[in-house]
This record gives sequence, C-alpha cells and structure tokens, in this order.
Amino acid sequence: MIIEICKKAKAASVKMAQLTADAKNTALCRMANALEANAEKILMANKADVEAAKSKGVKAAMLDRLALDQKKIQGMAKDMREVSTLADPIGTIIGTWTRPNGLIISQVRVPLGVVGVIYESRPNVTSDSAGICIKSGNAVILRGGSDALQSNVAIGEVLRDALAGTAVPVDAVQVVNSPDRKVAEELMRMRQYIDVLIPRGGADLIKTVVETSRIPVIETGTGNCHIYVEENADLDKATPIVINSKCQRPGTCNAAEKLLVHNKIAESYLPIVIAALRKEGVEVRGDEEARKIIPDVKAATEQDWYAEYLDLIMGIKVVKNIDEAIAHINKYGTKHSESILTADFDKAMKFIREIDSAAVYWNASTRFTDGNQFGLGAEIGISTQKLHARGPMSVQHLTTTKYVILGSGQIRK
Amino acid sequence: MIIEICKKAKAASVKMAQLTADAKNTALCRMANALEANAEKILMANKADVEAAKSKGVKAAMLDRLALDQKKIQGMAKDMREVSTLADPIGTIIGTWTRPNGLIISQVRVPLGVVGVIYESRPNVTSDSAGICIKSGNAVILRGGSDALQSNVAIGEVLRDALAGTAVPVDAVQVVNSPDRKVAEELMRMRQYIDVLIPRGGADLIKTVVETSRIPVIETGTGNCHIYVEENADLDKATPIVINSKCQRPGTCNAAEKLLVHNKIAESYLPIVIAALRKEGVEVRGDEEARKIIPDVKAATEQDWYAEYLDLIMGIKVVKNIDEAIAHINKYGTKHSESILTADFDKAMKFIREIDSAAVYWNASTRFTDGNQFGLGAEIGISTQKLHARGPMSVQHLTTTKYVILGSGQIRK
Repeated sequence: MIIEICKKAKAASVKMAQLTADAKNTALCRMANALEANAEKILMANKADVEAAKSKGVKAAMLDRLALDQKKIQGMAKDMREVSTLADPIGTIIGTWTRPNGLIISQVRVPLGVVGVIYESRPNVTSDSAGICIKSGNAVILRGGSDALQSNVAIGEVLRDALAGTAVPVDAVQVVNSPDRKVAEELMRMRQYIDVLIPRGGADLIKTVVETSRIPVIETGTGNCHIYVEENADLDKATPIVINSKCQRPGTCNAAEKLLVHNKIAESYLPIVIAALRKEGVEVRGDEEARKIIPDVKAATEQDWYAEYLDLIMGIKVVKNIDEAIAHINKYGTKHSESILTADFDKAMKFIREIDSAAVYWNASTRFTDGNQFGLGAEIGISTQKLHARGPMSVQHLTTTKYVILGSGQIRK
Repeated sequence: MIIEICKKAKAASVKMAQLTADAKNTALCRMANALEANAEKILMANKADVEAAKSKGVKAAMLDRLALDQKKIQGMAKDMREVSTLADPIGTIIGTWTRPNGLIISQVRVPLGVVGVIYESRPNVTSDSAGICIKSGNAVILRGGSDALQSNVAIGEVLRDALAGTAVPVDAVQVVNSPDRKVAEELMRMRQYIDVLIPRGGADLIKTVVETSRIPVIETGTGNCHIYVEENADLDKATPIVINSKCQRPGTCNAAEKLLVHNKIAESYLPIVIAALRKEGVEVRGDEEARKIIPDVKAATEQDWYAEYLDLIMGIKVVKNIDEAIAHINKYGTKHSESILTADFDKAMKFIREIDSAAVYWNASTRFTDGNQFGLGAEIGISTQKLHARGPMSVQHLTTTKYVILGSGQIRK
C-alpha cells in the first residue's frame, strides 16, 4: 500500500515541478474554498476522532489540539490563501556565470520532489503542509497521528477533490489512511521515492523518526530556549521579555524554558522576576545560588536543565559570567532560540557569535522564532538541525537547486 | 576512543567558528609547507601500505589510487594553498531586513561544526578534506580505508604538527587510527557530536554509510551519467563530446556511462560514434535497435542501464523521442550529470526542465561537473542528493546559517 502511495507521489511530483505559479495558486485557492465548503464533513469526522480519544482517556491538552471547529477550519482556509500570495521560489536563478571556456553555468531553484510529513494530533497540519508543499512544487505524503486519522482522511479527501480539474495532480496530496505503526516504519524506508521526511511533533516522535528513517530527515521543533539577563540589562525591559517568552504560549517550541541571571544582579533582580513569573502562575525551579536568594524556590535537578517543559515551569540559574551562560546554553540547549538582555555591545556580540543556535536574540522575546514573525510566510516547522535549513522553514526551504550548463561543444582538457 | 575523538573535535569546532580568515589561511599555508617538508615520512608510511596491499593481492587500479609519490604530495600541498586563496564564506550576511515591529533580522553564514569524512583508498583525500574543512571553519574527523591507514595517519600527524602554534586548534584535524569496521560504525552513531557525515568512495561504501549512519549524510559521487544525441544535433560536435565524456577519465563519477540516440539519426550516426568509441578502446553494449544497425555490438541487459561502469564500457540505446530519453534517464540514472546534444532550443529547454539531476548540460561534456571546473574551488565531493547541497560541494557548502535578531525590548503580541 505504501509503495503505491509513493509511486503515485513520485509521478505527481514530475508534473508538479513543471507547473507555473498561477497554476499552483489557482489550486491553492480552490483548496481553501473547498475546506470552507466542506466544513461539516470535516467536523463530523473530527467529532468521531474526539469522541474516540475521550473514551480512550486522552488528556485535555491533547483533546484541545485534536478538536476542530468552524473557526479553526476558516483559519486553515485563510492560511492556505496566504500561502497562495507568497512569492514562488521555483525557477529563481540564484546565479549565472560564464567560465573561461565559454560554458554558461546557472544555478536554478527547483522543487525537492516528494516530501513526507509525519505528525501528531493537530489535524490542521494536514492542510498547512499540503499548502506549503504544493506552493513549492512538491508532492506530499501525510501521515498524521492515529487519534486524528478520520479528521486527516476527511481533510485529505476535501483537498484532493478540490484538485480534480486543476493543473495540480490529485496525487500531489495523499493522506496515509492507516493508524498502524508498521505502515509509518515502511514509509520511513522509502528512500527511493521520498526526498525528505519532516517530523512535526514532540521530542519522542522526532527521536523515533531520526532513528528509524532511511530518508534524509529535517529535525524540527524541540525547544529548550534560554534567556540570559546580563549584568548590564535594562531590567525594566527585561521582565516583560521574560514573561512574554515564558507565558504568552508556553506549549510552543519557541517559549523560553530557562532563565540565566548574572550573579551581580541576582540579589536585586531575582525577587522581582520570580514574583512576576509567579503572578502569571509559573512554577520556578532554581539552582543553589537562586535558592539562597529566594529560599522557597524548588531545587532544579540536572534533568531540569535539559527539559523542554512546554508548560508554566521555568528553570532559573545564577551564572558568574557570560562564558558560563554560553557554555550552559550550548551544553543543555536544543539549538533553537536564545536571547541575551543587555545594554553592553561587546557582551551581546560575544553571545551572538558563540551561541550555537538557529536564532540568537539581543533584547527581544524568543517567541518571534516563527516563519510569519520573521516575514518568511507560513512555515512547515522550525529546523533545529544545521543541514539544508535552519530555523523557520517556509516555502523556499522545500526546494533544492539544479545546475544548468549551456555549451557550444566544450570538452574537458 | 571514538567518543574522545568526537569530544575533542566538538571543543575544537567552537574555537574554529570564531577564527578570522587570516588565521585559517595562515594555518592552511603552514599545512601545505609541512606536507612538502615531511614528504619522506609520508612516503615511507605509504610504502608500507602499498607493500601490505600488494601482498594481500589488491588490484593494480586500487594500488594506483593508494600509491603516493613526490609529485602527488606536491599536488596535495598545491591544492591546500589554493584553498587558502578562496573567499571565506563565514560571516557573510545573506540578508538583513527590518520587521514592522522594529526587529532587525539577519541571516548569517556560520560553520557546520564537526564534519566526518569516511573514504576509501586515496590518501590525498585526507589532506584535501582537512583543507576544505578548516577553510570553512569546521573541525574534521577523517576515517579512511584500512589499506591506506599508515599513510593517512602519517599525513594527519604532519598536518596536526603544522597546526601547533597556529590559531587553529590541533584537534580540528583528527585521523581515526583504526582499521576496525566497528569503529567506523561507532563513528556513524555520534550524532551528538558530528553535524554531517560525507562518504567519499564507491557505491558500496556510500550505501553502507547511508544505511548505518544516525548522523545526517550527504551522499556523493555515484554517477551513471547520460548523453542524449537528439535528431537535430550537430554531429560533428557530438562525437568529440561523447568521446570526451566517456574516455577522458573513465574512472570518475562524471564520466558518461550511457549514450541515447534518437532513432531518426541512429542508422547514420551509430556507425560513426561506435567506430570512434571502439577506436578509443571502449566496449559498447547496445539495445535491440542498436544491434540491428551494428550487429556485432554486445547486448545490453537491464542491469547495464543501471550500471556505473567506471571503465571503458558504454551502453547505447536508441530512443523514439525526447520523452523516452528523459524517462529512461530519470528511471535508471543516479541524478548526477546528463547532457543533451541538439540545435533545437525547445528540445533543449524541455530536457533541462524535466531531467531531475544535479547538473544538466546542453551541448557540452558531462566531465565538467566538478568544483574547480564550475569555478567554485576545491570540492569535498559531488552531492547526488537534493538536501543541503546538490552537485559539486565546495567550501561554502560546509556551512549553515544562523538568524541574528536585534531588538529593543520587543515582545510578541
């Protein structure tokens, strides 16, 4: 079954690569309209998923991610229309140069081919991923979580029906209609057909895909993000940044999980920031130095420094200088997003140079690491690895390049 | 042992990322001088390797790749000096933009970190890879073939001695001093320390690395390259291109292995091109149509169409149109380099658009797919995969990017 899906995707990808931007944008708008027109069908399927999940005792936070409503479906349609307005990267000529022997060499942007997406409970990932993949000229194979199977299949049917009669082949979007883990494993071995596999979800899902896949993987989204309040920070600005980074949406990968504070300001600043965090309902866990200053802070363990809480919890550590802060972040972090708060140019530049993360901030909230916030458009995930794409991945990151060489009979000497 | 090497490489990579171009170039020139000054030491170690290989009955072609002499060592030194003259990609700002909220976002080029190279018998890969990795600000772990172990260790010692006293840490270059396959397998699991693994060698080596590695791999160098002589080709130019592509260096990955000829010109052109190939000592293997025209051509099997001969053998197939040629290449090829020979603009554009390979040529030899020939400088391999880098990989392809975001207290709304 998977092999058939892969073959169809491969065949569709050949056609996709040749489409004009207009053809793809027309299809995207039709898909958006179809999502709205078929909201009832999608919501019925989603209701069945939600009820099955409830009876299995799935947690409230998970149910919240799984459940769709009219407003969420309108959001999916809106996002799809927005993708249609983005610039089309395909066919962009990155560079052209002439060699001494007269060969004219160009590097041209082309689609990757077939993208596989493996994800968890949120059914909107189905339409988001389909939109970004079509815009970038790729075929996509979508394998969502078993809890959302009926919702994903329904969304897939709606999108495929919308593609019939457009220039985009229907098989450019395929949803794997099986909750079987073995099917997912089979998918991960289809190196011959799938050009890249993108896992979207929690740390466990990503680890499983990285360890199982024979297809190149782009790791996304694990975020143990840090804020370092340096001794020369503007503390009036610091607290709102810490609160925003931690609390604005604690379940996201760009939320801050750890706060490092320079020891020269720890005694004066920790009471202020801890009070502010607690006011927002945040549980703070501190190292020994922090607990000397605020004794009722729970002790952080070694495991805390590695943890991505995705919750209203924050680890706090007092550091003796910027080198200790940088070493701590590079050791325990996930190379996602880190921010230094300081008025000192040299310290900020050192932090920016030496922190090994996808996004390094000076005097701003880590919550901005996001395709839309960066002005790149919709994203298919935030890469925390260094190969191919790093940071928010948008339409242009689902492409590769091809060298085109025009000659007039040149041979190599 | 491998874990120690990895830890040292990681520590060295942190320092490497901060070095100026001057510091790296000084070290590269010292390494080049040291190769020449220590030629005797390297040649002695190489002699031991060659003798051991001879007594094991290793084939002449392999011995030729393994054996070093004064001239080859001078070539290694010269290549190292050339790498020092290339532009330094590190610190390049790819783009800077200001968001509506005032955040200034820049995308900056930074090193990958630690590069692992797994290769076969040619000891010059040791110094080539070390040079490119240092230039691009990375630390490198080199694991060559067991036949070349003593040569590689000697070259590694010479390079490391040269680094002592420079700004480049000695551990930026490490050679794995073990022929044990298990050690290589251990290396391939060091995802925590190694950012990318590049296999350089034959198809078997590459397959093993792709299937074993837990580290992201960039596949290199398998080349089943094609030339398609279209009905409107300038046949006077065609034959020299075919001969050059096949014969100039048949053991390289960009040598052509297959010749496709349009059926309208097959009867007139096949006798000419086959005679020319045979004059160069090439064994031709043809499909049924080709054998109808030249009956003494050996029959090609299905396996021939997939084969990378790396030898004076060429498969010849007669096709009825350009669609058949494109379909054949995309099915049987390795997505490396393909060339169409034609005077017809529309046919050439169709071929360029629809062929899914790293390099697509119009009226030129496939032998140009090479970092130096493309004007990119020395290469660490030719990527035949689509992720991260495609085609010749030079210094700039051993880098990643980092987003740097300058704020003034921005929080997300």
